[in-house]
Amino acid sequence: MDKTMDKMKVAVIGATGYTGAELLRLLSQHPQVTVTCVTSEQSAGRPLAERLPFLSGCSDLLLEPFDPAAVAARADFIFMALAHTQAMDPVRSLLDAGKKVVDLSADFRFRSAALYKKVYGLPHRQPALLKRAVYGLTEIHRKQISRAHLVANPGCYPTGALLPIYPYLTAGVVDPAREIIIDAKSGISGAGRTPTAATHFPEIHEGMTAYNVGTHRHQPEIAQALSQVQKSPLIFTPYLLPVNRGIFTTTYLPLKQPLSQRRLSDILDDAYGDEPFIRLVAGSPNLSSVRGANFCDIGVFASGHYAVLISAIDNLVKGAAGQAIQNMNVMMDWPETLGLSTPGLFP
Amino acid sequence: MDKTMDKMKVAVIGATGYTGAELLRLLSQHPQVTVTCVTSEQSAGRPLAERLPFLSGCSDLLLEPFDPAAVAARADFIFMALAHTQAMDPVRSLLDAGKKVVDLSADFRFRSAALYKKVYGLPHRQPALLKRAVYGLTEIHRKQISRAHLVANPGCYPTGALLPIYPYLTAGVVDPAREIIIDAKSGISGAGRTPTAATHFPEIHEGMTAYNVGTHRHQPEIAQALSQVQKSPLIFTPYLLPVNRGIFTTTYLPLKQPLSQRRLSDILDDAYGDEPFIRLVAGSPNLSSVRGANFCDIGVFASGHYAVLISAIDNLVKGAAGQAIQNMNVMMDWPETLGLSTPGLFP
Amino acid sequence: MDKTMDKMKVAVIGATGYTGAELLRLLSQHPQVTVTCVTSEQSAGRPLAERLPFLSGCSDLLLEPFDPAAVAARADFIFMALAHTQAMDPVRSLLDAGKKVVDLSADFRFRSAALYKKVYGLPHRQPALLKRAVYGLTEIHRKQISRAHLVANPGCYPTGALLPIYPYLTAGVVDPAREIIIDAKSGISGAGRTPTAATHFPEIHEGMTAYNVGTHRHQPEIAQALSQVQKSPLIFTPYLLPVNRGIFTTTYLPLKQPLSQRRLSDILDDAYGDEPFIRLVAGSPNLSSVRGANFCDIGVFASGHYAVLISAIDNLVKGAAGQAIQNMNVMMDWPETLGLSTPGLFP
Amino acid sequence: MDKTMDKMKVAVIGATGYTGAELLRLLSQHPQVTVTCVTSEQSAGRPLAERLPFLSGCSDLLLEPFDPAAVAARADFIFMALAHTQAMDPVRSLLDAGKKVVDLSADFRFRSAALYKKVYGLPHRQPALLKRAVYGLTEIHRKQISRAHLVANPGCYPTGALLPIYPYLTAGVVDPAREIIIDAKSGISGAGRTPTAATHFPEIHEGMTAYNVGTHRHQPEIAQALSQVQKSPLIFTPYLLPVNRGIFTTTYLPLKQPLSQRRLSDILDDAYGDEPFIRLVAGSPNLSSVRGANFCDIGVFASGHYAVLISAIDNLVKGAAGQAIQNMNVMMDWPETLGLSTPGLFP
Repeated sequence: MDKTMDKMKVAVIGATGYTGAELLRLLSQHPQVTVTCVTSEQSAGRPLAERLPFLSGCSDLLLEPFDPAAVAARADFIFMALAHTQAMDPVRSLLDAGKKVVDLSADFRFRSAALYKKVYGLPHRQPALLKRAVYGLTEIHRKQISRAHLVANPGCYPTGALLPIYPYLTAGVVDPAREIIIDAKSGISGAGRTPTAATHFPEIHEGMTAYNVGTHRHQPEIAQALSQVQKSPLIFTPYLLPVNRGIFTTTYLPLKQPLSQRRLSDILDDAYGDEPFIRLVAGSPNLSSVRGANFCDIGVFASGHYAVLISAIDNLVKGAAGQAIQNMNVMMDWPETLGLSTPGLFP
Repeated sequence: MDKTMDKMKVAVIGATGYTGAELLRLLSQHPQVTVTCVTSEQSAGRPLAERLPFLSGCSDLLLEPFDPAAVAARADFIFMALAHTQAMDPVRSLLDAGKKVVDLSADFRFRSAALYKKVYGLPHRQPALLKRAVYGLTEIHRKQISRAHLVANPGCYPTGALLPIYPYLTAGVVDPAREIIIDAKSGISGAGRTPTAATHFPEIHEGMTAYNVGTHRHQPEIAQALSQVQKSPLIFTPYLLPVNRGIFTTTYLPLKQPLSQRRLSDILDDAYGDEPFIRLVAGSPNLSSVRGANFCDIGVFASGHYAVLISAIDNLVKGAAGQAIQNMNVMMDWPETLGLSTPGLFP
Repeated sequence: MDKTMDKMKVAVIGATGYTGAELLRLLSQHPQVTVTCVTSEQSAGRPLAERLPFLSGCSDLLLEPFDPAAVAARADFIFMALAHTQAMDPVRSLLDAGKKVVDLSADFRFRSAALYKKVYGLPHRQPALLKRAVYGLTEIHRKQISRAHLVANPGCYPTGALLPIYPYLTAGVVDPAREIIIDAKSGISGAGRTPTAATHFPEIHEGMTAYNVGTHRHQPEIAQALSQVQKSPLIFTPYLLPVNRGIFTTTYLPLKQPLSQRRLSDILDDAYGDEPFIRLVAGSPNLSSVRGANFCDIGVFASGHYAVLISAIDNLVKGAAGQAIQNMNVMMDWPETLGLSTPGLFP
Repeated sequence: MDKTMDKMKVAVIGATGYTGAELLRLLSQHPQVTVTCVTSEQSAGRPLAERLPFLSGCSDLLLEPFDPAAVAARADFIFMALAHTQAMDPVRSLLDAGKKVVDLSADFRFRSAALYKKVYGLPHRQPALLKRAVYGLTEIHRKQISRAHLVANPGCYPTGALLPIYPYLTAGVVDPAREIIIDAKSGISGAGRTPTAATHFPEIHEGMTAYNVGTHRHQPEIAQALSQVQKSPLIFTPYLLPVNRGIFTTTYLPLKQPLSQRRLSDILDDAYGDEPFIRLVAGSPNLSSVRGANFCDIGVFASGHYAVLISAIDNLVKGAAGQAIQNMNVMMDWPETLGLSTPGLFP
């Protein structure tokens, strides 16, 4: 009996970027799927392991150009890891062919085509799909995800910021009149695999800089997500941190009234005490503890009229590929931790 | 003619830590001083360059145990780079001997002995000196520094935080009812040269963590300094950043009313336009641009009821040894930039 | 049915160092074992995840002091991850109790008690066991390992050096009259988890240094292993590399006569073409491709009378915990790749 | 009196690369020169400090396109920091205009136009100049440099390799029949400022790789230099090391007969005991001790028929800009250490 016969066939579109690579790493540990199709326009025809030597000996797949029909013929579940604007049309084809899709780009994260145009600078070509897409912050939207055919995987910054904030919003303790301040430091893999001046090793090693202060595209994504519970003004400061992986997010959350450390901890506990991928820590999380793992570690500190929330995720795992697989598990009605239960890499 | 005859004799007490080492690096470029005395209890009798090999070929000094009388006999200006609590008594002796002193520990930063005891855990043994000590944030207290015999060099975090904030406080635009939020990321040299679990390479490389959230000893130092202009509630979050040098500080400054980007920039410009060591940058500073230099780079972003202030300093230079020398220059009535005008190291 | 009933019970002695931590990470993915016992003298009584927060949510084990009898009562296979000299006596007890042991210290790597004393500075207390111990370089000693009750897991440097050299020695092409030169760069985790001046972050970040040139304890280990095929003079230069993980080894192998690139590649291919954990690469390996994985990547370059051999391993995986588990698989007659087939972490 | 009137006017051609930037950093500390002209084709018309923000506040120069005639009119000494092939024609013009030139490209390092063509792939357009150019390894060719109008500044790898080897060659102790093996690890700034896949932060951080094994263009440069004393076969392995600055070179030098540690040290001492920029260290050098400084630190270890030589330089200083200024000092008959005596940056 060929065990792979029973497994679900999965495709990774855009396999040679960091998100695609991470999907392939994690999927190789998943007991219920087999990757049948990997695409790359640039390297079509070449072995996957030539572009991703760490997969040598683990995968014999060949890269191919992305043809939605060909993919639909050979895979039942598709992870889209293309740049924004490139996903919207092929996703339409894949859904029409009856496939389930998790899109890791920004193309289906907004509910409004007008907002998409404003933020990403060009009109959405599949506005009808925006309503069908479910925002894939798994711990928050689990139920809708379980019924979805198209999940818009959240951005890395929104994941690190929203998970700590949500319980307080829903508990009704956040002051809507004052700014929620999000100070979020990202490893360089978050900038993608294409070399740029800002990510050239000597420019950023031993350095640190903020970028797109007040204008980052993940800010309206966070704002949209929060506004579904309670609208708040938002300040968002992203940084490039000289590490490969990780997003370390500090959120200064304005409270209606001061709350005790105990009360703040209880709110997190009530919300996440049973979540397999959220770990509540006493003190501050550390990026070192989530490297390569699907965890979101959260600490909270009482500070007068504020709760200081600190979260650590691996931007490529919980902030991208790991959460995408977690969403697949939910969409397929599999145990949510399937293929994701290995601890991270320390040190 | 022996050129060194004309130079002022200087001692560095606690020469083998990172601050002492940086003092020696910078003093070696200073045209008006000659270092005559370097101390270390642990390595007394050994060549300085044995503990600091980067100084090999640059200095033939021998380390000696710290004896205030012996130092007073051979130096006219003393930099104290000992740990807190160790400076207070010898400083008394040195001042009594008519010497000028810049103390880089925390021992003379507080005006109140009671506050010192509360923060550092033991009684101050020289409370009378607290009134004579001038807080050495050069750009702010230049006049008092010029007349001082004892300057308490500011902490690295306070330097990075206070310089951007001060102009707005004095301009009267800061809302005293809301928290000033300081989010400050420090390179590991800020933790000193003694090995610890937290600074063991594999524990922090590729990592990031916050520490002492709400309890860091630099928070009351910042609060004291701000309160001299206007008292504000304060939230201070320090982090360990996996770089050798640098403090990257983001301050979320609550304004009485929203101010334009232009107005915010003008306030900085009016305060610091002529300062040789403060550079106002459009956009975000980068730690890479201040490494090894005495600059404080500052950027500001308008964000509704907040000014988002970002500053970058080298914690060992503007945050310690560089500012100490700048203070010496002011105390000696020398040009303030003497020995400090070399650019940093890039990349 | 409780699945864990069928699994072999395993203990990790010395669980809170980097090697212990890595054993626990890898064992958590192994389908045939369950870890029942983890020890630490320093943290006995505390949860494992307190000392290794990356394991939080993955393990509920409590640390206990190491008592060989207690361990023997609760585990059937024991990984010893103690410092050298600490393993020899307890291993005796564990073997007497009928257990199988992989020892990751140096205590059983030498065949001769005299050599052990010379290199490690004190007499071996269990010299009789030296004959029973099998040197666990899996690809080379697979057959003996399969019958062993005690396997001495090779040092990290020896693993990275020996695997590329062996095929050429056995092919008879190495000139025994000239030095084999091994230039081996190690990540800092190789120095263990105890903080030292040499591994304090600012001392080594952005730095590089050689250490123990000509005197490193792994040199006689390499020499002993080589001499079983052919005795050669040896030069061994180890370095501290500012990365967390990895050993990057270049070996300059003197040949009896110049060999073509093709011939050199064929020798590797013949020896390792079917090995699951050795990947032969065209060009140079890269540490980035083996991080977290049990692979040894090898490249070879013809250069006149020399073969230039370059290998990359993760010192904590193939250089320690991974190879230990590979050895366990062989000792238990399980598929050799069991629990080790996940790719590494890139980037 | 305008002090700058007395200073020599200097131009830096190709000012925005890492070598150009380092020239400007070091020249700013030089008491006898003033930089009057900086060029960049890409950024002509823009302030230098816009491309090199670390120079903000230190330089008001504007970048201009490179016009040899215009440069000759405004500068008396020219540092050429262009890519190879771009220097040869303009250097001709500058020499014809009576200027002195240090060229930091490879264009004038070879004595033979044929060799240049073979290594750099296109014919040399100014072969006549090759005879006039002096190879600028200052400690070795000081006398010729002092009379030169055109100095070809050595490559970074050759500098780090040749300085330790030369004394042994001239002492006649090197066995010419066996290979000199050079294993040289370079920081990423050595690859220049243009972003590439290999220097993209996540590809190389926490990684290490060899490249151009046996084919690097610096190998024939080293061979030519050595052959002037004694011809030896050569093996050269270069690596990318995840640090910004530094070349760490280990040379395995075959000796005619074994020499004692004492004898090996004496040879270095005799050759370099009085050199201001060469520091002989007991044990291994460390990159940390030369960062930003013009030193070459050298250690030697006796190992049977070999001397193991280890050197550490900053590739941008002693390996490029620092040595270029040292050469200028020699060409101008100034004290050789002028402007170069500041220690490096530690940590």
